[in-house]
Amino acid sequence: MRIALVSPLYESVPPAAYGGTERVIGALANELSARGHEVTLFAAGGSDTAADLIAASDAPLRMTMTRAELEQIAPHLHMQMLADVYRDAPDRFDIVHAHTDIWTLPFASSSDVPTVVTMHGRLDLDVVRAVLPRYSDTPLVSISDDQRRAVADLDLRWVATCPNGLDLDQYFAAPKPPSSDWLAFVGRITPEKRPDWAVEVARRAGRPLRVAAKIDPLDIDYWHEEIEPLFRSSDIEFVGEIGEADKPEFFAGAAATLFPIDWPEPFGLVMIESIASGTPVIALRRGSVPEVLRHGESGFLCDSLDEMVAATDSLATISPEACRREARRFTAPVMTDNYLEVYDQLVDARCPVTELPSRVFSLPSASTGS
Amino acid sequence: MRIALVSPLYESVPPAAYGGTERVIGALANELSARGHEVTLFAAGGSDTAADLIAASDAPLRMTMTRAELEQIAPHLHMQMLADVYRDAPDRFDIVHAHTDIWTLPFASSSDVPTVVTMHGRLDLDVVRAVLPRYSDTPLVSISDDQRRAVADLDLRWVATCPNGLDLDQYFAAPKPPSSDWLAFVGRITPEKRPDWAVEVARRAGRPLRVAAKIDPLDIDYWHEEIEPLFRSSDIEFVGEIGEADKPEFFAGAAATLFPIDWPEPFGLVMIESIASGTPVIALRRGSVPEVLRHGESGFLCDSLDEMVAATDSLATISPEACRREARRFTAPVMTDNYLEVYDQLVDARCPVTELPSRVFSLPSASTGS
Repeated sequence: MRIALVSPLYESVPPAAYGGTERVIGALANELSARGHEVTLFAAGGSDTAADLIAASDAPLRMTMTRAELEQIAPHLHMQMLADVYRDAPDRFDIVHAHTDIWTLPFASSSDVPTVVTMHGRLDLDVVRAVLPRYSDTPLVSISDDQRRAVADLDLRWVATCPNGLDLDQYFAAPKPPSSDWLAFVGRITPEKRPDWAVEVARRAGRPLRVAAKIDPLDIDYWHEEIEPLFRSSDIEFVGEIGEADKPEFFAGAAATLFPIDWPEPFGLVMIESIASGTPVIALRRGSVPEVLRHGESGFLCDSLDEMVAATDSLATISPEACRREARRFTAPVMTDNYLEVYDQLVDARCPVTELPSRVFSLPSASTGS
Repeated sequence: MRIALVSPLYESVPPAAYGGTERVIGALANELSARGHEVTLFAAGGSDTAADLIAASDAPLRMTMTRAELEQIAPHLHMQMLADVYRDAPDRFDIVHAHTDIWTLPFASSSDVPTVVTMHGRLDLDVVRAVLPRYSDTPLVSISDDQRRAVADLDLRWVATCPNGLDLDQYFAAPKPPSSDWLAFVGRITPEKRPDWAVEVARRAGRPLRVAAKIDPLDIDYWHEEIEPLFRSSDIEFVGEIGEADKPEFFAGAAATLFPIDWPEPFGLVMIESIASGTPVIALRRGSVPEVLRHGESGFLCDSLDEMVAATDSLATISPEACRREARRFTAPVMTDNYLEVYDQLVDARCPVTELPSRVFSLPSASTGS
C-alpha cells in the first residue's frame, strides 16, 4: 500500500530525546516499511526513518524557533507541508495518515484520497471543540477510548482507537536487577505530571526517588518555585533529561515507576516503557491509565496518594514477566496491525465505515509480536 | 468570466460601519456583477451583494467572537472557507481572487485554477515575512506601491498595484456648504492614527475639530488614558462611530480632513472619501499617502505638524472640484478595470506574466468613470 505519514515538525522522527508523538510515528513508519509498504514520511529535517523522507523543514522547529515563532509561524509551515502532501496525492498515495491535528482537516476534506487523522493531544480545548465538528466526515483515530470523552457530545467520525505502540525490544531486553528499592519518575517537569506528588509518595513510602525529566523553558518558573526546592533532599536524585538509549536500563532498575498525573492523559508512553522493562507502574486513575495498565498485573490503579503509598508495599505481588506480557499489547507491530486494518477499510470502502473493534485488549499473534 | 471573490469573515460585505477591506470587496463584487461577470462571493453571513453569496460563517466574526476566539478559532474558519473555494474550483471558477492574506497561499498553491491574492495589511510582520517567500509563484497584488517596501528584499511575484476603489457616488453628490471652518478626523481611535496629533493641529490652527471614530475594545485603555482627556474641550466634538450613510455629509461639511498617521498606511480609504466629498486632506507623508493625494490638488503632503498647521491657511487654494476630480482615480469602476486586466492576464497566460503597469495615475475612461 502507498502510505503518506504526516508528522508534526516540532521534533525529528524519532526525536532526539522526549517527544512522544514523533516517536510513535517513527515506530509506525519503520514497521510499515519493514512489511513492504511504500511509505512516504513528511517530517522535520534531520529525521531518520526506513520510509522515504520528505523533509518539510530544515530542522525540528523546537530547536530553531522562539516561542512566539512556534505559535505564529509554525502553523503555516504545517499548512505548507499539508498542501505538499495533497498536491498530486491521488497519483502518489492510497491513503494519507496524518498526525497534524486539526490543521489537517481542510486539506483532507478537499482530497479524493482517503485520510485518517490520529488525534494525539487533549481534545477539551476550545479551538478543538469548535473546529472538529466542522469536519464530521473525516475519519479520526483516538489513542485511548478515554481521550474521546471531552468531545463525546460532538458528532464526529471516530473509526478506531489505536493505542500507541513503540519498538520496545530494548526495553524487553533490559536486564532486571534482582532487587531495588527506589522509585522512578520520568517525563516533563510540568504541573499536570505532578512531580511534587511523586516526591510526596516516595517520602511517605520511605523510598528514594530518581527523576529523569526534561525542564521545558515554558515550565522554568514552575521548576524554580515549586519543584527544585522539593528536590533538595538527599533521597531524591534528579538525573535530568535522559536519552532513548539510557531509558530501558533506568526503568528496569526501579522497583516501580510513579505516574501521579493530574490531567486526562490521552495515552502515556512512560507507562509502556516502564512495564516493558519489567517495572510496574503505580498510577492515579486518570485519562487513559486504566486502558494501559492492568491492576495487579502491570501496576496499581490508585484513587489517592494514600493508595499510591500503600501500593509500594504490594510490589512483590507483581512479576516482571507479567509486566512485560502486558507491554506486548503496545508494540509497534500491534499498532501497525491496527492501523493497517483502518487503512484497508478506508481504502476499500471510500464510504462511511462502521467503527472498527478496538484491539487494545487483544494479544498480538505470534507472527507480529516483537 | 467566472470569478470567486474570497473575503475575510471579520465583517460582513459591506461592513455595518468601519471595515475597509470588506467594503472594497463589496464594491468590486457589485461592479463585476454589474458588468455581467459570474461572481461568487465567499464572505460572512449577513453580507449583502449583487454577487452569488456563499456565507462561510453565520455572522461577522467580530460580532460573535471574543478576542481569544478571533485569534485561535478564526484562522480555522478561514481555512475551511478556502478549502470550500478550491474544492471543485476547476469546474466552477476561471479565477480565484482572495483577500484572505497568507492563509490563502497553501490552498492556492495546490490548485490548477489561477489565484491572485490582494494583500490588504501591513507586510512588515515577522509571520508575513516568513511565509510569503515560501510561495514566490503566487500572484500578489498590492494596494499601494509603498506597501511593498517592507518586503522589497524578498523574491515575490507582484503582478500589479491596484489602488482601492469604492462606490463613491454618494460622496460625489454630497452638497458642499459654501464655507466652514472645522476640521474632520475619521477612523479608529488607535495610536497609529494619532488622534492626539489631530487635536494638536486643530488647536494650533485655531479651528474646531470634529471626530467621527470607532473605539475598538482593544484600544479602550488608550482611549481613556490618552485621548478622552484631550477631547474634554469645547472646541472638540466627538461624534462617535458614524454609519456609511452619514459619512458623505460629514466629510463634505468640513474645511479639511486631518490624516496625521504615524505608520506605513497601506492605503487609507478616509482620504478618498474625503476628497470625493470635495474636502481636501492635510496628511503626513507616510506609507501610501503620496500615491493617493496630489499635493496642492486634493490636499497637502506634510512632513511635520508645523506644516500641517500652516496648510490650514492655504485651504482656499484647493477647490472641491479638483478634489473630486482626483477622487475619480479611486472609484469601483477604475479598480474593477485594474483587476479585470490582472484576471485576463492570469487566465490567458497561466504562466509567469510580467508585472502589469499600474493604473494608479490614469484617469478612467468615460464609459467606466462613475
